[in-house]
Amino acid sequence: MNTAQYIVKRLEELGINEFFGIPDCYNYSLIYTVENNTSTRWIGCTNELNAGYAADGYARIRGYGAVITSFGAGELSVINAIAGSFAENVPVVNIVGLPSTGTMDKKLLVRHCFQDFNYKNFIKSFESVTAATAFLAKDNAKIEIDRVLKVLVKEKKPVYIAIPEDVAKMEISDRDVTYDWISDKNTLEKATKKIADKISASQKPVIIGDVLIKRFDAKIEFKEFVSKSGIPASNFMMGTNLIDMDYEKYIGSYFGNYKNPIAQKYIEETDCLIAIGTIYSDVNSYGQSLPFKINDHIAIYGDHTYIEGKKYDNIKMSDVLEALTELVEPTDIEINKPNIGLKQINDDNEKLSSSYIFPRIQAFIKDNDIIITESGSASYGVAQMKLPQSTEVQFQVLWEAAGWATPAALGACLAKPQSRIVLITGDGSHLQTAMEIGTMLRYGVKPIVIILNNNGYTIKRLASNNSSDNFSNVAKLNFAKFARAFDGDIWATKTEKKDDFDKALKVTQIMNKMCYIEACTDEFDTLPIVKEITNTYKSDTQATSDNNVYQSIKDITEFNYSNSYDNIEFETVVHKGLDEEKVGE
Amino acid sequence: MNTAQYIVKRLEELGINEFFGIPDCYNYSLIYTVENNTSTRWIGCTNELNAGYAADGYARIRGYGAVITSFGAGELSVINAIAGSFAENVPVVNIVGLPSTGTMDKKLLVRHCFQDFNYKNFIKSFESVTAATAFLAKDNAKIEIDRVLKVLVKEKKPVYIAIPEDVAKMEISDRDVTYDWISDKNTLEKATKKIADKISASQKPVIIGDVLIKRFDAKIEFKEFVSKSGIPASNFMMGTNLIDMDYEKYIGSYFGNYKNPIAQKYIEETDCLIAIGTIYSDVNSYGQSLPFKINDHIAIYGDHTYIEGKKYDNIKMSDVLEALTELVEPTDIEINKPNIGLKQINDDNEKLSSSYIFPRIQAFIKDNDIIITESGSASYGVAQMKLPQSTEVQFQVLWEAAGWATPAALGACLAKPQSRIVLITGDGSHLQTAMEIGTMLRYGVKPIVIILNNNGYTIKRLASNNSSDNFSNVAKLNFAKFARAFDGDIWATKTEKKDDFDKALKVTQIMNKMCYIEACTDEFDTLPIVKEITNTYKSDTQATSDNNVYQSIKDITEFNYSNSYDNIEFETVVHKGLDEEKVGE
Repeated sequence: MNTAQYIVKRLEELGINEFFGIPDCYNYSLIYTVENNTSTRWIGCTNELNAGYAADGYARIRGYGAVITSFGAGELSVINAIAGSFAENVPVVNIVGLPSTGTMDKKLLVRHCFQDFNYKNFIKSFESVTAATAFLAKDNAKIEIDRVLKVLVKEKKPVYIAIPEDVAKMEISDRDVTYDWISDKNTLEKATKKIADKISASQKPVIIGDVLIKRFDAKIEFKEFVSKSGIPASNFMMGTNLIDMDYEKYIGSYFGNYKNPIAQKYIEETDCLIAIGTIYSDVNSYGQSLPFKINDHIAIYGDHTYIEGKKYDNIKMSDVLEALTELVEPTDIEINKPNIGLKQINDDNEKLSSSYIFPRIQAFIKDNDIIITESGSASYGVAQMKLPQSTEVQFQVLWEAAGWATPAALGACLAKPQSRIVLITGDGSHLQTAMEIGTMLRYGVKPIVIILNNNGYTIKRLASNNSSDNFSNVAKLNFAKFARAFDGDIWATKTEKKDDFDKALKVTQIMNKMCYIEACTDEFDTLPIVKEITNTYKSDTQATSDNNVYQSIKDITEFNYSNSYDNIEFETVVHKGLDEEKVGE
Repeated sequence: MNTAQYIVKRLEELGINEFFGIPDCYNYSLIYTVENNTSTRWIGCTNELNAGYAADGYARIRGYGAVITSFGAGELSVINAIAGSFAENVPVVNIVGLPSTGTMDKKLLVRHCFQDFNYKNFIKSFESVTAATAFLAKDNAKIEIDRVLKVLVKEKKPVYIAIPEDVAKMEISDRDVTYDWISDKNTLEKATKKIADKISASQKPVIIGDVLIKRFDAKIEFKEFVSKSGIPASNFMMGTNLIDMDYEKYIGSYFGNYKNPIAQKYIEETDCLIAIGTIYSDVNSYGQSLPFKINDHIAIYGDHTYIEGKKYDNIKMSDVLEALTELVEPTDIEINKPNIGLKQINDDNEKLSSSYIFPRIQAFIKDNDIIITESGSASYGVAQMKLPQSTEVQFQVLWEAAGWATPAALGACLAKPQSRIVLITGDGSHLQTAMEIGTMLRYGVKPIVIILNNNGYTIKRLASNNSSDNFSNVAKLNFAKFARAFDGDIWATKTEKKDDFDKALKVTQIMNKMCYIEACTDEFDTLPIVKEITNTYKSDTQATSDNNVYQSIKDITEFNYSNSYDNIEFETVVHKGLDEEKVGE
């Protein structure tokens, strides 16, 4: 076994079967290993950044992801994806192929670098965006690989491994190794006892769950704790659908002061806030109106917990939740449950709008779907939906890199081929990474792609002082034509009217291929909540950040919460002469 | 005047009228400034990396370039382009919009960052890939801007300026400032005297010129020195066409041991090597077979000179060359001049091949054209052409980031609208950044784009142990259909036969619009020199780097040097019923 095989084997044990990347002669040994191993597969993307986003999307579903890049010009192209994974606790390994140690020792001339014969320039750029970095040498390869993969597993954050070509091919012995770790028993007991006491002493406890529960593999323990405790529970945006939306103690997602006054009231008035796996940002936790201080209460994270500002280290989220489920007495607080979901509003206008599209998509989503949402209208739209409990939603609203969702959907498709993947993105964002549609077709994955085309960066347009500013425009593309230019089996259509969009959604149900739907709306079209939020950003970040803009919630009437999710029937349609040219073109 | 206006004004004084980037609410003030200033223009690209490559391409023509990105998720996407500019001495300013100082001081929740309230995480990643970085505050903005722009001008390397949103809007006073610097007189005198003595004592002096002559604005002084001295002169790949190819003492480009034994012999046998503005790498200087040590002779750089290993600092290349032109006595060495240029080989095969395409392009190139070449077949092909002296060629073969050339061509088009831009790229590379075709159409630039489609990464395929490896494949795209999916005036065609390619080149001459030609060849098709070189990389970088593979030059017969450049006539054709559908489809 050689070093490349050792890494691939260890990553396979963590659940990785697909490796994303771009070939270069410095990483051939790594790619050969992936290709020659019967249970792993090389997925060649169109560029490194997209490969990094795909690995991130894969890791969000599978647990871990890997991207293979190469020295200098390759690895630096992926750094933004790795930084996004770091921000949002997505454990991705960036494996970088380097020239051989002989080349570096002799200071030979190579490409992809500066002329200073310092082959370690690039690892520096990764130090602040990964949890651990390793530059392998012949005498430390195995130890270093094990060291950084241990960090990957414990912190669920990206790590960086640079492998000179000769080290990749160097023979090493295999060994049985586990990267798992166990909670500190004493700390666990102390912390959970303290939390349980606080809960039992409280009158108005409330739970906020968020996405790190998924990352740290504590979904089951979380649900059991929520259910046994009977404490009213909410979630931040990235935690959408962690709690069964029909659960009697579910108080709906927290939308700051923009929506759902019920959750806001519970969180404002609680005397015992239990935050589990939370990510804080202006978007995810509506930071401008957050009525509490971070960690200044009970805050349970993946490998540590805060209780009123005191840190209890080296205890697993799943262990804490399991112990709490044992310790807590069920409460029987009666709650004021909000209606959840988007309501379909019918009017005479036959043109598409976001207010029409999102309730339609809500009705279209079914069990076991995975929704990948680009930040912007898509994320706010999906965050308001009523969804089947088995549907999974992925957001990237802390890092919020425009273009992330398209390659992430490729990753998701490969991570869980048995699920239907629904990608919802915007035109400006999709343009950033749209070439990955070609990679999807190359590998035969079949997502449903919905592109909300409002002719540019509408959110930026709304947030700008001058809404006619040219800079919010983007290149104009006929997306359906674009998608059909690739070699592969795709059904692509452009829709401008409600009827056509409805038909297109129906058609996807009988198509055993990738479906690609452009949904065109007006230039200023977006959801009411997005308009409201961007108003607060308008023209001046300073003003936004410094004001605590508590606005009247009563004004928001266009989208009412209601259990309207069954309003529209999406029966399995019979193909009635609809074809890709007729629908919408 | 505010800080944003101060920066824009200073950069405009350096010749920048176009600013590339992606909008985000943290950089609005910068973009407003660019848009509201009548003599500057905002160019919105499809993503940050492409914007960075475009700014790089712009700077290669104009002298300086600028890209505007934003905090975290924006700026990290551009880092690979900035690193490439750093490697190849292209002075690009990366201006990054940040949240306001109030937001940062109060540690408010924002997006595009980690949850650690450290807003300086990202500048760290740029420190090793720029010549200077600045994080502006209210009390140092002007001083810091001037400090880093001074470095930009002196070193011709990228710099990084982070501007909090409120600092961008802060009122400051203008001032007259120059970033220029002057050579140290004593050092200049000493160094040039020493060089002149060495030259006059030598029997076989030889000059190698390279691309840094352009970057440090010393083309005229270089030509005068070459001409007055009468010393035989060659160039590395990136210095192609710096010396008039018809000049009697021009010994052709140095191709290592792969080609042009005449230049190789001169360089091997010289007793006085004068390297001017050289960049060394395995590709640019054929590093594996370079017969001398770097800087161990006379090496004249932008702001310093080496003479036999001793550094003479703070002297400008242009001043050194001007002084040398004064000091040297003309030599009248007779030289053995090689034939220069690609020869058109005619055979009965009607299918396109690289050996056919490149001589055809050579004949097609005319005065004042700018050729942008992607690394790979394109760069090796163009490096062998006989070109009119006024034609400019741009390569990126040290950093060699696949995909660079397409956005760089956008930058070049905007930098010099009066020139015809010819972009030559490969299918795999073009896929990486092809969305910038949309940006070209949006801004109405009219390059001629030639895509060599050999169905994947052919060089990687050739360099691999197993040429049927799946990893060298890429997504398959009908490029002409792709280009036509954008809104804009484009003439796009796919060509597979020699006749069709010829016709397509002719058609471009009567089209007053962007022309986009896909030229399809066999999967293993590339130029003979590329096959030979990739053979040396084959399967083992170690082997490549450690062997000094001096191969027989005599074997290379397929492409003979000859003055064949006039063989084919490309008269201004009359439009004879050719249309985009008929040519090649």
